[in-house]
Amino acid sequence: MQLLKPYIESFNNFLKSSMDGLPESTLYDPVRYIMDASGKRIRPALGMLGCELFGGTSVDALPVALAVEVFHNFTLVHDDIMDDADIRRGKESVHIKYGNSNAILSGDAMMILSYDILKGYQEHIFTPLVKVLTETGLGLCEGQQSDMNFEEMESVSIEDYLTMIEKKTSILLGAALKMGSIVGGAGMEDQKHLYQFGKNIGIAFQIQDDLLDVFGDDQKVGKIRCGDIINNKKTYLYLKALELADADQRATLLSYYSQSPTDPTEKIDKVLSIFKSLVVEEYANQLKEAYLHLGKSHLQTVDGNEEVKALLMKLADYLIAREL
Amino acid sequence: MQLLKPYIESFNNFLKSSMDGLPESTLYDPVRYIMDASGKRIRPALGMLGCELFGGTSVDALPVALAVEVFHNFTLVHDDIMDDADIRRGKESVHIKYGNSNAILSGDAMMILSYDILKGYQEHIFTPLVKVLTETGLGLCEGQQSDMNFEEMESVSIEDYLTMIEKKTSILLGAALKMGSIVGGAGMEDQKHLYQFGKNIGIAFQIQDDLLDVFGDDQKVGKIRCGDIINNKKTYLYLKALELADADQRATLLSYYSQSPTDPTEKIDKVLSIFKSLVVEEYANQLKEAYLHLGKSHLQTVDGNEEVKALLMKLADYLIAREL
Repeated sequence: MQLLKPYIESFNNFLKSSMDGLPESTLYDPVRYIMDASGKRIRPALGMLGCELFGGTSVDALPVALAVEVFHNFTLVHDDIMDDADIRRGKESVHIKYGNSNAILSGDAMMILSYDILKGYQEHIFTPLVKVLTETGLGLCEGQQSDMNFEEMESVSIEDYLTMIEKKTSILLGAALKMGSIVGGAGMEDQKHLYQFGKNIGIAFQIQDDLLDVFGDDQKVGKIRCGDIINNKKTYLYLKALELADADQRATLLSYYSQSPTDPTEKIDKVLSIFKSLVVEEYANQLKEAYLHLGKSHLQTVDGNEEVKALLMKLADYLIAREL
Repeated sequence: MQLLKPYIESFNNFLKSSMDGLPESTLYDPVRYIMDASGKRIRPALGMLGCELFGGTSVDALPVALAVEVFHNFTLVHDDIMDDADIRRGKESVHIKYGNSNAILSGDAMMILSYDILKGYQEHIFTPLVKVLTETGLGLCEGQQSDMNFEEMESVSIEDYLTMIEKKTSILLGAALKMGSIVGGAGMEDQKHLYQFGKNIGIAFQIQDDLLDVFGDDQKVGKIRCGDIINNKKTYLYLKALELADADQRATLLSYYSQSPTDPTEKIDKVLSIFKSLVVEEYANQLKEAYLHLGKSHLQTVDGNEEVKALLMKLADYLIAREL
């Protein structure tokens, strides 16, 4: 998004000098490798905007932005090992390039680094930042654990699925905003609303991800169309379809989601035709809009700079509308 | 050690109630599993004694003791994956029992938990505790990375070896004491000396470990005699032998340390005979005593409760003299 460009440029400069400052060591090479990859830098931007919202400068929030981005990337490094994912942002995953042991260890170091990055803040800022990062980190682990558990289960309730994506994806967006707002000097109420804004936008963002996989434009999404169907991933679309399905449809879905055929064409066609007949795309869009709306209403009540608020509103729309 | 018994009992009770307080979840089952295993609880005891030394109660230091022990066990969980170690304290390693993915993730959660455990301390205590834990954590990762790198190298300087064991083992002993002393209200100078005491005792402790492997009494050590020789581990004994060896001995050592014969009897005999002819045991004992002495001299300068100091001195002797 064009409006975020100055934030992301400023962040990338700060990131580069921080990475250059790490010791020359095989421990930190994988850290530089993953942090170099062109991430969207959504979380850093949220941290910086969260700070500006309350009169701080985006520069004040750079360590928060970096801590959150390093933490996010630590989770990607470890998740890619657990999920056996060989490619990340078009490049080899860290464990493919450097081996599992180095990926585990460098991921560990990244998690600890995110605490280290915050150490320059004054005590009364540092303390709540560490607590938010810690609480969020435990939530992320719980989310990843649920995601792995769901793989072994035949079905999952939509409620449990939403809790899982909330923890795995959304709370870190909320945390980025909240941590930025703490640096900016926000009061407790505003911190909470900002967190809720980020969290709900994050859930909408993930539902959008589920939609993009199935109904997105191949070229833009940049990954294999219907990868979630091929990989038997229990997304919102699949779980909603299961909920609405009649006995035949249910049996068909369960049967296809227990198979991994070499040629998935028939599987995709059959699953898509059930998705379409049950209009799960519509349900997903409605749910996404509801979370977007809920998030925005939290942002609306925040007592902060109106220009920054407007920018955050636009960012929310952008994130949810992207590439469909 | 009998004198530590009340500390360890008090710690184990606190540990149990903390573990019982974690949510019922597949994420925390491996945490309870590894924390249940009967560790020696040296680090918790050091944390509690570090606090008592300055007039705090050992109860005040229980969260520090737990944070450090959970952190220590997190490193064990991940190290066992990296080192392919199937057994830990006579039980299956976490990754053997629960699988690699769960071990990675639960290890991550444990690391974050150690920060979480500290959250009840007041801001001016919490801040330095988090900073010590973070700095130590990065050091531990660097130590483990060096250890893994050393496996790929033909030889390693003794200086580099000592730096590696300092980071991998010793600084967490120093950190436990320092963190306890922060809770007890120690001044900066005393904190530093106490840290140095723990660190140097830790190095002596690790040299003792190297000695025990080769010259220890099989029954007491509870692991395979000469496991380090069988596994081509570059311990102090091996590196010192390489340093002192003539050309023939050097060639023999290098050749044996590039092999892993099914029956290691001959290898062990030949390596041991070189170790003996070069009196590396003597060198190791002298170095161990030097670190012990250095550590104690740091403790001596600390301005704290004399009874607790005496107990710490005894603990140092006990740790270094154990089971040889």
